[in-house]
Amino acid sequence: MITRILAADVPRHIGSRVRTAGWIHRRRELKSVTFLVIRDRSGLVQVVLTEPVELTEETVVQVEGMVTASEQAPGGAEITQPVITVLSEPAKAPPFDLYRPRLSATLPTILDNAPVALRHPGMRAQFAITAASVAGFRAALDAQGFTEIHTPKIVGTVTESGANVFGIDYFGRRAYLAQSPQLFKQSLVGVFERVYEVGPVFRAEPHDTTRHLAQYTSLDAELGFITDHHDVMAVLTETLRTMVSTIGERLPEVELPVVPAEIPEIHFANALALIGAQPDEPDLAPAHERSLSDWALRTHDSEFLYVTGYPMRKRPFYTHPEPGRPDHSNSFDLLFRGVELVTGGQRLHSYADYLAVLPDPEPYRSYLDAFAYGMPPHGGFALGLERWTARLVGAANIRQTTLFPRDLNRLSP
Amino acid sequence: MITRILAADVPRHIGSRVRTAGWIHRRRELKSVTFLVIRDRSGLVQVVLTEPVELTEETVVQVEGMVTASEQAPGGAEITQPVITVLSEPAKAPPFDLYRPRLSATLPTILDNAPVALRHPGMRAQFAITAASVAGFRAALDAQGFTEIHTPKIVGTVTESGANVFGIDYFGRRAYLAQSPQLFKQSLVGVFERVYEVGPVFRAEPHDTTRHLAQYTSLDAELGFITDHHDVMAVLTETLRTMVSTIGERLPEVELPVVPAEIPEIHFANALALIGAQPDEPDLAPAHERSLSDWALRTHDSEFLYVTGYPMRKRPFYTHPEPGRPDHSNSFDLLFRGVELVTGGQRLHSYADYLAVLPDPEPYRSYLDAFAYGMPPHGGFALGLERWTARLVGAANIRQTTLFPRDLNRLSP
Repeated sequence: MITRILAADVPRHIGSRVRTAGWIHRRRELKSVTFLVIRDRSGLVQVVLTEPVELTEETVVQVEGMVTASEQAPGGAEITQPVITVLSEPAKAPPFDLYRPRLSATLPTILDNAPVALRHPGMRAQFAITAASVAGFRAALDAQGFTEIHTPKIVGTVTESGANVFGIDYFGRRAYLAQSPQLFKQSLVGVFERVYEVGPVFRAEPHDTTRHLAQYTSLDAELGFITDHHDVMAVLTETLRTMVSTIGERLPEVELPVVPAEIPEIHFANALALIGAQPDEPDLAPAHERSLSDWALRTHDSEFLYVTGYPMRKRPFYTHPEPGRPDHSNSFDLLFRGVELVTGGQRLHSYADYLAVLPDPEPYRSYLDAFAYGMPPHGGFALGLERWTARLVGAANIRQTTLFPRDLNRLSP
Repeated sequence: MITRILAADVPRHIGSRVRTAGWIHRRRELKSVTFLVIRDRSGLVQVVLTEPVELTEETVVQVEGMVTASEQAPGGAEITQPVITVLSEPAKAPPFDLYRPRLSATLPTILDNAPVALRHPGMRAQFAITAASVAGFRAALDAQGFTEIHTPKIVGTVTESGANVFGIDYFGRRAYLAQSPQLFKQSLVGVFERVYEVGPVFRAEPHDTTRHLAQYTSLDAELGFITDHHDVMAVLTETLRTMVSTIGERLPEVELPVVPAEIPEIHFANALALIGAQPDEPDLAPAHERSLSDWALRTHDSEFLYVTGYPMRKRPFYTHPEPGRPDHSNSFDLLFRGVELVTGGQRLHSYADYLAVLPDPEPYRSYLDAFAYGMPPHGGFALGLERWTARLVGAANIRQTTLFPRDLNRLSP
């Protein structure tokens, strides 16, 4: 039996008989000829039949035939004299046409029908970008001496905020879904110095927004022996550069942002002044982030901007203060195209500092051990994967770049 | 300032002044000389002082000094004339000596003190093997045209077994922690044809055993357009080969198993006969698995063995029966050194088949959609990462190769 080839490789086989397999993406019946467009993971290939066929769209088929040059066919070749074998027949028709350039359905309809909506080549392409981004993230950090870790998603103690945590019945005890791998990755700086994790994090977001989900994929990194948060930002910038270049290598058709040699940086206090906000604002509102991104693009020709030195009172307890300016912190957010994409900074590393900032250290006791036994100055960052892809492809809603989103209202598919 | 170098690189700098940083791993005071062994992520380096120092073990230090050849020192070089800067002081002493060849503590003590126990070079080395294994898993599947996916860990429907599932309060509704990405990865065969996921899975294991955890890391793959489970086994064999070779490249000191060109295979019915078990046994007991592994090593010189054709009644509902022998299935387990390491097989792909095997398809409705819209014959496998490392390093208990294990009794650190 001939080995199966992918649709994208068909034009390289003009004059040969080949075998392909995939889904009937589109059927067009003309007077004397029928065209079937077959979709597989690599793309589309056109099959020409001289007789009508009964097969409906989404039928899974195997096609053996002759590859023939054709100027009209996608890729300059099509399959003629086909022998078609049905591998699997659909039980019903999709609720929308998968062959149209865009799915003509509302977002809820698309999400309700995710298993079939994701088959749309435009939808599928977004997740190839996601996969390439993660591969780049890992390649960059592997090259910089990081170790990949896998940490518990079930925890006994809330680390970020008690308000948006999911509770679990854990063998009759109360436990929670981890909102981040924060304290684990910090602990492991004591072991591996430099660690990263790609994994799910969970937030019981009570609001239905376009940029929050109950579960998302967090790209987390943490490193020791830093001077301050600028060492973390340098690693992040290098990592972003590799993420972008990896997408470019795997998917040359994707339009990519430029990661500047040096991403511009503005201190929080200066950022407030620049956008004319009150000097006592504790955080940046979404409109502030958009203004600052516009400013960075205008004045630095950069789609990325570091805002540093956020006020301590809005950052989590493990945040390291700014030396000589203790109301501010050695922290940063990375804005990308008007939205916060990454949060990071230097962390407290002294055991005494943790005891001082935690009103009740008892629930944290076993995590704080890492600091009791000697921990170097360290810091890290977390990047939301689905949000990154959404900004890259210009998706208005993060659900568009999540395979099977989970939110206030959505628990399936 | 001189750039920091790693301990492992020190011997390449004989005659130069260098800067290193790390933890004081061991301090030895002799009459006229003090030795400090500094530990960093790369290894150990010895520092020689002519005066005593007060610094205790696990103090985080930076050391600048001259690299001097020394036959007695590890790596043939040591640092003399050091200038030591303390970066961070421990608040207490570790509950065991980290410098001894093995931690002399019970497993519960080690696990209770994981943040510091993991600093032991022997402990840490195990997780370098884990990280290399995952890197090899991804490299093998990337090279074979797979797409990496990230699927929900919060689900509305139990997919494997209702008995060992964790319940969550999901915005006032009942939800569960995913026991596997099974139905998601199958759905996504309809989109990407070939997918993999590395992520946490959750089992509310009510028994305290040496090989089960409440959370473990599952290496999952699924692929379409297969003939039967042998196509899945071929992908798995190739993937294992790359996992092993990646460990070998990154960690040449690790003793590795040989993945044979063809891993031997035995049908379940023949396996029962071989070990003298009753022919109506529905599954293999741990002792059976050990006997079969011994047999494969003895007769095929292989530490790996595929057992195929498990009885349908002990496999999950999505299992594909064996053509012509419908009490058996197109499934397999891969045994490695006496233990089941991987479970896999061909899945049902026809919508009608799912409706026929599910007593109540309603809870699965949105997942079954994928099959309603045309799905090729497909199959896949799942490998437990912590169990793999445990078998590789000969750890008796899976908790030894899990950073922060979760079980019936353990919810921290």
